[in-house]
Amino acid sequence: MTDYKYKCSCCGKEFGKELIEENFLYLCPECGLAERNQPLKGVMNIFYDYDELDSNLDRNKFLRLNAGNFSGYKDLLPVKHIDDDIRINLNPRIYNINHAGDTIKIFDDTLNPTLSLKDRASILACLKARELDIPDVCTSSTGNAGSSLAGISAILGLRSHVFVPSRIPISKRVQIQSYGSKIYIIDGTYDDAFDLCNEVASAKKWYNRNTAYNPLTIEGKKTAAYDIFISCSGEIPDSLFVPAGDGVIISGLYKGFYDLLELGFIGKIPHLIAVQAKGSNALVRFMESDKFIFNKTDTIADSIDAAAPRNLYMAVDSVRKTAGIALSVSDNEILEAQKYLAAHHGIFCEPSAASVFAAYLSIRNQGFESYYKNAMLCITGNGLKDTKALSDWNIVPEIYNYDEIRSQLMLK
Amino acid sequence: MTDYKYKCSCCGKEFGKELIEENFLYLCPECGLAERNQPLKGVMNIFYDYDELDSNLDRNKFLRLNAGNFSGYKDLLPVKHIDDDIRINLNPRIYNINHAGDTIKIFDDTLNPTLSLKDRASILACLKARELDIPDVCTSSTGNAGSSLAGISAILGLRSHVFVPSRIPISKRVQIQSYGSKIYIIDGTYDDAFDLCNEVASAKKWYNRNTAYNPLTIEGKKTAAYDIFISCSGEIPDSLFVPAGDGVIISGLYKGFYDLLELGFIGKIPHLIAVQAKGSNALVRFMESDKFIFNKTDTIADSIDAAAPRNLYMAVDSVRKTAGIALSVSDNEILEAQKYLAAHHGIFCEPSAASVFAAYLSIRNQGFESYYKNAMLCITGNGLKDTKALSDWNIVPEIYNYDEIRSQLMLK
Repeated sequence: MTDYKYKCSCCGKEFGKELIEENFLYLCPECGLAERNQPLKGVMNIFYDYDELDSNLDRNKFLRLNAGNFSGYKDLLPVKHIDDDIRINLNPRIYNINHAGDTIKIFDDTLNPTLSLKDRASILACLKARELDIPDVCTSSTGNAGSSLAGISAILGLRSHVFVPSRIPISKRVQIQSYGSKIYIIDGTYDDAFDLCNEVASAKKWYNRNTAYNPLTIEGKKTAAYDIFISCSGEIPDSLFVPAGDGVIISGLYKGFYDLLELGFIGKIPHLIAVQAKGSNALVRFMESDKFIFNKTDTIADSIDAAAPRNLYMAVDSVRKTAGIALSVSDNEILEAQKYLAAHHGIFCEPSAASVFAAYLSIRNQGFESYYKNAMLCITGNGLKDTKALSDWNIVPEIYNYDEIRSQLMLK
Repeated sequence: MTDYKYKCSCCGKEFGKELIEENFLYLCPECGLAERNQPLKGVMNIFYDYDELDSNLDRNKFLRLNAGNFSGYKDLLPVKHIDDDIRINLNPRIYNINHAGDTIKIFDDTLNPTLSLKDRASILACLKARELDIPDVCTSSTGNAGSSLAGISAILGLRSHVFVPSRIPISKRVQIQSYGSKIYIIDGTYDDAFDLCNEVASAKKWYNRNTAYNPLTIEGKKTAAYDIFISCSGEIPDSLFVPAGDGVIISGLYKGFYDLLELGFIGKIPHLIAVQAKGSNALVRFMESDKFIFNKTDTIADSIDAAAPRNLYMAVDSVRKTAGIALSVSDNEILEAQKYLAAHHGIFCEPSAASVFAAYLSIRNQGFESYYKNAMLCITGNGLKDTKALSDWNIVPEIYNYDEIRSQLMLK
């Protein structure tokens, strides 16, 4: 770990790490504001002394690191000690698929310890909780952040508390409970769960992993950019399609590439393309009007179901600074994309992750070459994370006896 | 690939690979017999010219290979070409946990492409099907072998057909269907599905991955032993606890260690400890009486639910030759083990995999030091493979509104 400081993404003020961490602050002490059902104000980023780092870090050496292993990134992570327990190693896989004559790069983060990209944030948050001697960690979640925090806590020996909306998919709920986490199901939305987690964490002095609210969630997710850089041998894609709910994955990717840019390892940050569901598209609407309006949401893609994206402003910034775009796709398009990816490319992912393929097809149909040529799709969660979504379209086939099936098949 | 030959595990006769493969034979041409609801006779193994290999393979070089990557093992696998598509790489993780003062080694194969150890067999079978120019592959399955074949086929561009019993867990069923596989649900048991698959494959000239029946399933699973050898830096455990249904995983582990022994890389093969469910324990009963009796099965651990273990004789041999034992544990012990592993060690696995921890506890209570000291548990399938098993014990907690949860927590 090198020295680092916190900087507010709204007012731009900088704060030493002692002030923030010893006082258990998360948002900007000057302008931070967490209001019910509103995007957060004063979300902070963490910055390093890149000049100092520059003299220690070498591009070629960095490229020889093992992707998915936080230990190699220790100079660029805000924790004192990174556990060498291989159970917290990630399993990112980067490969190409061919679709209608195009080569598409895939960043597949579905085989991580708890089967989603969220492990990146949970690992960093849990390591920090341990560093601060806080035995209890908590988060709100649509499902993946919660099952991730539950799993990583179980591995690292922390107690976890997870606040979820009542429409959480069964698989994610049982995953959270199996890991021994205490689950609180709220008769309300994810947005309600988020606010409740903040209130309770503050009163109970639990370490709060709430996404965006805790700047380490952004720092954790930024490691996806490092893994992409390494796995592509430094030849990063021109654009990146990213599912966007609260907007922390996209902000994390921006931050990771920003670090690499500051270190002189890359020449520019890929266009970031935020993908939302039509039934939960606050970020897309903000991009068009510069206004946040709270609308009720409705989508099958639970991981990107967020009426008030907590990291809205930083996510919008990430898209704009990289000359990216935000777009939304229908539940039907998402479902078709999910089916297609599994059956034709063996990529078995949950609906929110499949949304990026639907968005890719849409962008390609519209002819936006700079976005779809040399593009990478971020696949953020495994298909088994939401069995319910799958069983809706994979209906039980008719059941026959031995002789019936034999004669049906033999006659063909 | 070096030269290899097939050898019958019953009559001991050897056959050239051309004879077997060009005629699409699987069992021994002399004594092979696949009868309804009976263990197979004449299951074959594949052997290499170890003397020739010995001069090319070096222990230290082998130890520097990447575990989970078939390419490194190409001299010891019976296929001409191993695809370098990283999507077929495995993600084995080997680590220690502490339990009641003991260190237990874990071989965790739950983060493979389709989340179970079965991928090892499916990869090899699919590569062989491609080599033989057969576009259709098939298998019977309690769930994991089928979802594995479906996923690996989708990655490698083959058509797959999967025969399953009606009690297949939902998660495994939808995984098979999502990958675009044709699924046939039989009103019967896994054992019926096995026999039906054999009949149909033979008539339709599909490549048959049926476990044990196809010797490549044993050769594929043996790679787990290589991965263990590499991940332990050559210091393999003294005993290995392995879930046993058809008995192919345990036979594969035996074969992998046998290869290493022949090459002079290890001094002896670990005691192999076959773990079954009390409700499906044909192997345990055979060990005691030397008789196979077909009994109806009943267990929550679907992956080891097999009334007629197809590889019974080879599995028994593997246990006996390594001075191991076979034992069975109750569904209740399995369930408790599943809960404990997830909550206390962050190991999230399906019931059949958890059975090995239950067996470890039982062996430890009985004081069999040579079996439980320096032991390794083989965790063969992810927890999300069977959501139903999890939702039975992780019941939905009561749902409260925002203020109710807040006041409940704040008052504590």
